[in-house]
Amino acid sequence: MFKGKGVRPDWSETPPPKKSYRSIFKYGDPRKFKHPNHQWVTMLRDELGMKDQDFRSKSHEGRNPVDLKRGLTLSPEHIDILGNIVGSDNVTTDLYQRVKYAYGKTTEEMMELARGHVREISDVVLHPRKKEDVRGIVKYCNTAHIPIYVFSGGSSVTLGLRPVEPGITLVLATHMNRLLELNEINQTAKVQPGMMGPAYETTLNRAPERIMARRRYTCGHFPQSFEHSTVGGWVVTLGSGQASTYYGDAADMVVSQEYVTPSGSFRTLDYPAAATGPKVNDIMKGSEGTFGVLVEVTMKVFRYHPENRRYFSFMFPTWHRAVNSAREMAQGEFGRPAVYRISDPEETDRGLKLYGIPRPVDMFLKKRGFKPMQRCLCLGTVEGDRDYTRMVKRKIRTVSKTRGAVYLGGYGARKWEKTRYTEPYMREDLNDYGITIDTLETSVPWDRLHDLHQGVRRHIKGRPRTICMTHASHFYPTGTNLYFIFMGRFEDVDEYGQFHSGIVDQIQEHGGSLSHHHGVGRMMAPWMAAYLGKEQMAVLKALKKHFDPNHIMNPGGQLGLDLRSEQTRHP
Amino acid sequence: MFKGKGVRPDWSETPPPKKSYRSIFKYGDPRKFKHPNHQWVTMLRDELGMKDQDFRSKSHEGRNPVDLKRGLTLSPEHIDILGNIVGSDNVTTDLYQRVKYAYGKTTEEMMELARGHVREISDVVLHPRKKEDVRGIVKYCNTAHIPIYVFSGGSSVTLGLRPVEPGITLVLATHMNRLLELNEINQTAKVQPGMMGPAYETTLNRAPERIMARRRYTCGHFPQSFEHSTVGGWVVTLGSGQASTYYGDAADMVVSQEYVTPSGSFRTLDYPAAATGPKVNDIMKGSEGTFGVLVEVTMKVFRYHPENRRYFSFMFPTWHRAVNSAREMAQGEFGRPAVYRISDPEETDRGLKLYGIPRPVDMFLKKRGFKPMQRCLCLGTVEGDRDYTRMVKRKIRTVSKTRGAVYLGGYGARKWEKTRYTEPYMREDLNDYGITIDTLETSVPWDRLHDLHQGVRRHIKGRPRTICMTHASHFYPTGTNLYFIFMGRFEDVDEYGQFHSGIVDQIQEHGGSLSHHHGVGRMMAPWMAAYLGKEQMAVLKALKKHFDPNHIMNPGGQLGLDLRSEQTRHP
Repeated sequence: MFKGKGVRPDWSETPPPKKSYRSIFKYGDPRKFKHPNHQWVTMLRDELGMKDQDFRSKSHEGRNPVDLKRGLTLSPEHIDILGNIVGSDNVTTDLYQRVKYAYGKTTEEMMELARGHVREISDVVLHPRKKEDVRGIVKYCNTAHIPIYVFSGGSSVTLGLRPVEPGITLVLATHMNRLLELNEINQTAKVQPGMMGPAYETTLNRAPERIMARRRYTCGHFPQSFEHSTVGGWVVTLGSGQASTYYGDAADMVVSQEYVTPSGSFRTLDYPAAATGPKVNDIMKGSEGTFGVLVEVTMKVFRYHPENRRYFSFMFPTWHRAVNSAREMAQGEFGRPAVYRISDPEETDRGLKLYGIPRPVDMFLKKRGFKPMQRCLCLGTVEGDRDYTRMVKRKIRTVSKTRGAVYLGGYGARKWEKTRYTEPYMREDLNDYGITIDTLETSVPWDRLHDLHQGVRRHIKGRPRTICMTHASHFYPTGTNLYFIFMGRFEDVDEYGQFHSGIVDQIQEHGGSLSHHHGVGRMMAPWMAAYLGKEQMAVLKALKKHFDPNHIMNPGGQLGLDLRSEQTRHP
Repeated sequence: MFKGKGVRPDWSETPPPKKSYRSIFKYGDPRKFKHPNHQWVTMLRDELGMKDQDFRSKSHEGRNPVDLKRGLTLSPEHIDILGNIVGSDNVTTDLYQRVKYAYGKTTEEMMELARGHVREISDVVLHPRKKEDVRGIVKYCNTAHIPIYVFSGGSSVTLGLRPVEPGITLVLATHMNRLLELNEINQTAKVQPGMMGPAYETTLNRAPERIMARRRYTCGHFPQSFEHSTVGGWVVTLGSGQASTYYGDAADMVVSQEYVTPSGSFRTLDYPAAATGPKVNDIMKGSEGTFGVLVEVTMKVFRYHPENRRYFSFMFPTWHRAVNSAREMAQGEFGRPAVYRISDPEETDRGLKLYGIPRPVDMFLKKRGFKPMQRCLCLGTVEGDRDYTRMVKRKIRTVSKTRGAVYLGGYGARKWEKTRYTEPYMREDLNDYGITIDTLETSVPWDRLHDLHQGVRRHIKGRPRTICMTHASHFYPTGTNLYFIFMGRFEDVDEYGQFHSGIVDQIQEHGGSLSHHHGVGRMMAPWMAAYLGKEQMAVLKALKKHFDPNHIMNPGGQLGLDLRSEQTRHP
């Protein structure tokens, strides 16, 4: 059956039924799909040991309506008062909304929802209209000791949105989603936290037409979740975009922030730099909703010159050479590319098979000694001023060639750019056939990179019939990140969870950070105590106590701040 | 008398007598001098209204030996125990040492010491040999409630070293002054906090000869106090060097830090980036000794290629054009210069008079319409890769010319570079004749720059016979700093203090930060409450309480953390 054209799985092409479990866990646009191609299917068959019949029937699609019964813990009086703050149109105890806003896009969440298994949900969902609403809500909830959870884009892959204790969820993207001010002198944009990536970027790109600006701008932040995440979410989780090597991580773009916390509201200072003690602006970044609610943020923006963007791709003979070249790029003091990605041999090999490589190119490479499962693909872009992009691209070519690379033109990078946001659409397709694809990511100084890469790969590949692809895609003078993509079939959520935790253990043991840009949430929380150490965890707990003495902000494990010691994990 | 060659003041050319007050307040090397030249004297005569006889006799030179009587508050038992920790050679209650290590280089300190007026001093001076000594000292002092002050390079100009409460002073530069490790893979250097700038930079520059490194490196941090400040001092006060526009501020170079605090010792994480909650590494930066003692720091280092350095200088027709050009440089996305400085019309005019401009150049400029008290000098350097420095310099020329500037070659920048660290040597010369020269600095977004510049100038120039020169020298996409140099004659420290505070009020009122790179110390402390606002000051106080519950670390006003409300100032 698999011979010749092979099996054609019946990939789902219909939007999830309204109010179904699937409508909650499906990634991205309900009407948008991206299916694994024929090469993918061949790979799954060959490597995950799947049989013809495995592709005949789907299981756990979650197409049934959300139909659970859950009572309310909050008294009607509380709900009335909260409703009065935001207006009656913006408060609901509807069960579907309560479930919908209790979930992000974590793999375990999808697996459970697909089986109709719902964990904790909030009692009430509120859609605040403005920061004054948030102030009123936080003040009331602080007095009444009502837990507050915040949902913005909903793209968390770290169980960051789970309302562990009965309380309320604020949805920020409904109303608090506008660009408030573009300051062309300072090149800053004041934004509401619930503004989605595309709305923000499009407004900046088209600033002359839309808001009579003199120039076009770009936000510089393009995570894979760009289309379904918000500016506020980027900041509070310390996100990083695909062009971070040039533009910086989300935290680097933050000029100032306004927060509503149980202990008070404030706007941080907006100076370009200041030697005036520890910076509250920094302290708030990455607080993941545990200190307070971000209600406004002023971000750096950058001049938008897509006409200057230059694309490049290279093949390196080995991973070591690709890494060495990337390090030279990051330390060579000649400027930086925007996007820069190097794929390890397994990712390179699978990538070429899955997405195709023109036969002449493949022949040429093999002839030149670039062997499958050794060679490594590198691709990227340079952005900025025209002379700058020309010079930086030229330098990268020289640096790469010196390390044995062959230049492959800009095609690969352009192709990657076109599909940069759509890969996650495949996860439901795979899940329908019992295949789990997921990622874990970490950052690491250069001198621990190879050990970490090998250690984590060894662990993942130690499991039979498991695929592992790795790339590095965010570069700093002192190191980079490693992004592990793994794929396998798991009996159930528990088996998957154990496997997943084992990878995190390996990352920790080999000297990688707990996350480079996905954040901590509740998923990484158990490792935080060992990761930070007692003294530094105590610092975060002291801040938590200061901002939120009644422990109402995102309680239940987030950042590991309120875990009991038996809930922590020490690899 | 002033006609013709004019008066020749008898500038001091002898090192301060041993153990004199002057030996404490004299800037820099005791055997090094730099005197105001003839043009300076002419300026002082013309503008400060000084007469011949004012230059005949000096007053308040502080050449007498430190001879005060001060008892000890600490019991001999405490002193014995502390002495046992550091070894008997490294502990002293000698009065001269107690005074010496109680002072920085703040103007008010010089004025008072020159008059033999000594404020608070510590009981005991300790020279810890290693971080374990510091751990022992902090632990003991925390139990015994003994205040700890830390002296490193001693270059504070913000009263940052004043031991307000009777306790001990730790001197870090005596023993804890070495480079511990150079990691060439990560391009990082692990340094003890008391390592002086020149020792650090020279070791990095000569790394191949000194420590068998493969390459030469530079620290990238060159404050005016470079020769007399330490790596640890740069970090805990949030310093910024003259090449910060390219290399970043000191805080940007910090990879990780190790602290000893009353609530525990820890080393912050060393990942190139991490999305794992608020960063303790950031929280500690700028804590100015109030949270704990920095005992080791890992800094980014950069490749050292002085052969690629390019110099430039320009004359702009007006301050507005110079500022616009600087903003284009900072926002133009073509890379950045290392040093970049623009002087306002008064600084330009005085600079040309004081340090000379070749007559043909002056004629040429005037002919081209560059009028005195309108025209503005710009100078700088580009560092990094050879192609990078060539391209960036070319771009800066284009940007500047487009805004009406004339290129003046590299001479001005080279001349500036030669004397970049020596200007402060003149302050004792001037003080000997009753003239005070001092500086205040601030950072500001572009859109508040002109208002701030004019407001502060108006205030300073509102005082009769007072000189004010301003430059901007640290550039960011969102703004820059303003550095005000002022000169006048004051009756006494009180009159000067009032004038000084008035300037800080103006800076605050016109939207500048309390400091860009001098830090807060006790000098700016009274403004901190208004500057941060109640909520953000409460955050710093919560951290203080966490790290230092017994309030032993640098107590007495530092950062404004323990000021009573009547000690605060609200402009």
